[in-house]
Amino acid sequence: MTTEFLVQQIHKKQSFLCIGLDTDLDKIPSYLLYEEDPIFAFNKAIIDATHHLCVAYKPNTAFYEAYGIKGWQALEKTIQYLNKNYPEIFTIADAKRGDIGNTSTRYAKAFFEDLEFDSVTIAPYMGKDSVEPFLAFEGKHTILLALTSNEGAYDFQTQKIEGKELYKSVLETSQTYKHAENLMYVVGATKATFLTEIRQLVPNSFLLVPGVGAQGGSLKEVCQYGMNQQVGLLINSSRGIIYASNGKNFAEAAAESAKKIQIQMQKELTNLV
Amino acid sequence: MTTEFLVQQIHKKQSFLCIGLDTDLDKIPSYLLYEEDPIFAFNKAIIDATHHLCVAYKPNTAFYEAYGIKGWQALEKTIQYLNKNYPEIFTIADAKRGDIGNTSTRYAKAFFEDLEFDSVTIAPYMGKDSVEPFLAFEGKHTILLALTSNEGAYDFQTQKIEGKELYKSVLETSQTYKHAENLMYVVGATKATFLTEIRQLVPNSFLLVPGVGAQGGSLKEVCQYGMNQQVGLLINSSRGIIYASNGKNFAEAAAESAKKIQIQMQKELTNLV
Repeated sequence: MTTEFLVQQIHKKQSFLCIGLDTDLDKIPSYLLYEEDPIFAFNKAIIDATHHLCVAYKPNTAFYEAYGIKGWQALEKTIQYLNKNYPEIFTIADAKRGDIGNTSTRYAKAFFEDLEFDSVTIAPYMGKDSVEPFLAFEGKHTILLALTSNEGAYDFQTQKIEGKELYKSVLETSQTYKHAENLMYVVGATKATFLTEIRQLVPNSFLLVPGVGAQGGSLKEVCQYGMNQQVGLLINSSRGIIYASNGKNFAEAAAESAKKIQIQMQKELTNLV
Repeated sequence: MTTEFLVQQIHKKQSFLCIGLDTDLDKIPSYLLYEEDPIFAFNKAIIDATHHLCVAYKPNTAFYEAYGIKGWQALEKTIQYLNKNYPEIFTIADAKRGDIGNTSTRYAKAFFEDLEFDSVTIAPYMGKDSVEPFLAFEGKHTILLALTSNEGAYDFQTQKIEGKELYKSVLETSQTYKHAENLMYVVGATKATFLTEIRQLVPNSFLLVPGVGAQGGSLKEVCQYGMNQQVGLLINSSRGIIYASNGKNFAEAAAESAKKIQIQMQKELTNLV
C-alpha cells in the first residue's frame, strides 16, 4: 500500500486509528473458547465490527507465538481475512524483528511476502544492514522503533550520544539508509512533548504512536505536536478497544470504544484543514 | 539448564562449540526436498552427526518463520528432538525478540515453556522492562545483544554515550536488572580485541560469539581475550558446518568440519588449565 492511499483512507474514514490485535485467550469472552480457532473468531468479530472506524490493524506477534502452531495459524487466518475482505486496511505485523542482512531478508519475506503484511516493526540496535533488507521491498513499510512508551525507554533510548539522544540518532541515521522513504517510526505517546523535536528530524514520516489509552498518552497532545500536513500519525489502541467488554457484546463494545476515539480524531483532522 | 552443567559439558566434550541451525531449503541437499519435512530431516541428520562435538545448537527463528506454519512445525520438531534425545545440549532460540513487559512475557513463555528452549536471544533497545520478563524464568538464560558482528553494529552500538560506547552501557546497565545472573551476551567475534574491555565489565558472564567462520573471526583471538575461568564462551558456527557439503555426505562433512573446530577448542581449553 502506498502512503498516499493510506492518507486518502484517513480522510475518507476521518480516522487515523490503528487497532492492536493483542489477542489473549485469558481475556477474550470465555464462550469463544469453544470455537475451533478462538483467536481468529475473536479477531474476525472485532474486525467486522470496527473496520470502518480505523485505518489499520496491528497484531503483535508475541500473542500468536505464545500459542505455538495454533497461534501462527490464527495469525495467518487473520491477515488473510483482512487482505481479502478489507484490502483498504493498512496492516502492521508488530514483530520488532532485526538480524544481520541475509537473516533480516528471511524475516522480511516471512512478513511481506508469505503473510502479505503492509508493514512490520523493526528494532534498530543492529543498524543499517539489519534494516535495509526490509526497506528493499517496494510498496512495503518498515516501522522502526525510535522512542518506545515503556519505562525501559530511559535505559538507552534517551541516553545522549555526543549531546544527542540515541532515539534521535536512530531517526537521523536511518534517514540515510537506502529506500528510507519506506520508513515509519514508533514513537511512544507517553512522551508527547518529545514529538516537537521528532517532527523537526522527520517532518514527513508517518509515526506509529502506541500508548494512547492503557499506557496513558493523550490524543490531543499527540496531534498538537505530532501531526503534519499528510496527517502523519497512526495512533494505536489495543486493550482499551478489544477488551472493552468480555461479554457477548464484546464486538459492539469494541466498536463503541473505537467510535469514541474516531470522533476525537475527526475533530483533530478538522483542525488540520 | 544451569551454567554449572553447561561448563561440565564443555570440559567433558572438550568443546564450547554452538552449531547454528540456519536451515535454508535452497542450500540443503536437494534430495531431502522429497522428505515430508525437509528442514527437520536435515536438522536431525546434522544433530545426530555432530552432537558429540558441540555443546549447543542455535536455530535462528528467521529461517523457520520464512516457511510459515511448516517452518514453525520444523522448529518445534527440532527442539523436541533435541530435548528428548540429547538433553545435555544447551539450546538457544536465536530470536532477537524484545517488547514491553506483558508482551515480553508472552515471548518468554513461547520460547521457554512451550518450546522448552534453554535460552533466547534478546534485543536491548527497549530496556529493563523488556528484558526482565525473560530473566524471571528460573533455570533459563537470556542472551542479550551487546556487540553484534555485522557492519551495522557501528551505527549505534559503538557510538559513545557520555564517553562510553552504547554496547558497554548495555552490558553495565543490564547487570543491574533483576535476576541478572541469568544473563549471557552476544559479542561478535569480528571484534575480538574488544573482548578485553568487555571482560572487565562482565567477567563472569557467558558470551555467545557468532562470526567465527563465515563472518571471519579468529577462534584463537577470541579465546585469548574472551575466556574466563569457567570458559565463559560459546562460539557459534552455522554455514561453515551445516553446509560443508550439499551432497549425500552432508552430515559427515558437517561432522568433519565441527571436529576441526573442536580440536582447536581442545587446545584452547588446555591453555586454560
